[in-house]
Amino acid sequence: MNSPKILDGKSVAATVLDECRAETAALLAKGIQPGLAVVLIGEDPASKVYVGSKARTCAELGFHSLKIELPATTTQAELLNVVRALNADPAIHGILVQSPPPAHIDEEAVIRAIDPRKDVDGFHPENVAKLVLEDPSGFVPCTPAGCMKLLEVSGIITNGAEAVVVGRSMIVGKPLALLLVAKKSNATVTIAHSRSKDLPAICRRADILIAAVGRPEMVRAAWVKPGAVVIDVGINRVEDPSKKSGYRLTGDVAYQEVAPLCSAITPVPGGVGPMTIAMLMKNTLQAARQIQ
Amino acid sequence: MNSPKILDGKSVAATVLDECRAETAALLAKGIQPGLAVVLIGEDPASKVYVGSKARTCAELGFHSLKIELPATTTQAELLNVVRALNADPAIHGILVQSPPPAHIDEEAVIRAIDPRKDVDGFHPENVAKLVLEDPSGFVPCTPAGCMKLLEVSGIITNGAEAVVVGRSMIVGKPLALLLVAKKSNATVTIAHSRSKDLPAICRRADILIAAVGRPEMVRAAWVKPGAVVIDVGINRVEDPSKKSGYRLTGDVAYQEVAPLCSAITPVPGGVGPMTIAMLMKNTLQAARQIQ
Repeated sequence: MNSPKILDGKSVAATVLDECRAETAALLAKGIQPGLAVVLIGEDPASKVYVGSKARTCAELGFHSLKIELPATTTQAELLNVVRALNADPAIHGILVQSPPPAHIDEEAVIRAIDPRKDVDGFHPENVAKLVLEDPSGFVPCTPAGCMKLLEVSGIITNGAEAVVVGRSMIVGKPLALLLVAKKSNATVTIAHSRSKDLPAICRRADILIAAVGRPEMVRAAWVKPGAVVIDVGINRVEDPSKKSGYRLTGDVAYQEVAPLCSAITPVPGGVGPMTIAMLMKNTLQAARQIQ
Repeated sequence: MNSPKILDGKSVAATVLDECRAETAALLAKGIQPGLAVVLIGEDPASKVYVGSKARTCAELGFHSLKIELPATTTQAELLNVVRALNADPAIHGILVQSPPPAHIDEEAVIRAIDPRKDVDGFHPENVAKLVLEDPSGFVPCTPAGCMKLLEVSGIITNGAEAVVVGRSMIVGKPLALLLVAKKSNATVTIAHSRSKDLPAICRRADILIAAVGRPEMVRAAWVKPGAVVIDVGINRVEDPSKKSGYRLTGDVAYQEVAPLCSAITPVPGGVGPMTIAMLMKNTLQAARQIQ
């Protein structure tokens, strides 16, 4: 067995961000500064980390960035007012409401309130429909977009390939399956999930296997066809007393045993994760271009 | 080999229409008459036949039915005005613009102009997104809805089944794949298409095989696992000098050689076809209920 190609999301994301920086400079020269607003409700520590790193990346690229921190007691009506103000703000091209909001917030209604032209998360019905319709003016959700970019930049051919997506969420599984089956990609796509019978056998068919279920190290060596490309979207916290933090991050794939079988594989962390923020920046630039 | 169960779309559609008739009577008793408007542009003979049979079915059920026939020279603006008038008409709950329109018409813009609450074809972005989001308030396109209904009424279990959908159109393949993978159905779904490698081997995996490509008799015996359920969505005209009309209708499945292998199969004609109109009536009733 050869050692697999490691699909280094950090390095690919850095390249994407370099392109974004250049495009930002070009827009600035025309008097347009791309602007991203991130709304955070409550004190979830993980969400705070994500929001912080989004703001930092904005600053690095030369974006205008707005961080709106609201108390956990914010009402639905107050939140919708914030969204409407951002819709009307010409300095803002992208709006993101950090998920998950507190339980009393109707997240779907909030997403619907975002101007679809500023919906850089790609969750608004308008953009969901554009994904199905293969309309490139829509925004593709950042994680699936990051997976596709990683495949593309790594020279992995989707055309005619058998892709298996494990997971059918609205955020990753379904949009990724739709992207892979679109005419631009031409893969044969299977969507499998926790209720699928004989998941290992289904996964073993895959030339490109995408794990997006959120179960630590579920995909084992026996699930993977030798030579397959494995994309691990999972980011799970697993208890680990040997770590200072008491936990370590692990994907949905049992990396140590799977990697030797693969032609290419994403690590966790450092695989799909860094791509997500890079694609958010790319979406914000697309919004800034399209909204003019 | 046993003879397969013939999935008799005509008879299942008749049952669905009986339910619709009963529901219509109940709505009429409340003073609500379900109303469907069908807009036909130009003189396409096949379209005329479809529109005629839709109007006839409306009459049989006690719907209010409006057939608007416009000349092939109708402009986009004129057509949009017609759609807007129907959107505003309280007697109309469902609006359908017969496809395909003449080449100078932007069909997507017309679909977008239809009030999504009256979009009984299920092609408006709002309804496409609801399908992805598994929101039952949306309208499911009639042909895929008809396939699902046929499976359900025939007692075919989708839960855990391997379904293969051949075809990735917006009208049939993609929505059907989304319906089959939804939590309500729980199938493992593969979307294959003309660019898939080794289509016969992919199809042979299927417990439920759905052919929706529009190629006469493409699916042969060697493509079908013994005991599979085969749903044939294709309706193709094939030259046949022995017929008075000079042609016969055939599906995407080579029925004669495939049927003996199957546990169940739809004939063409008389399978999925009749289900499509029945589901259009069901969608119109849903609109009449929801729009109140």
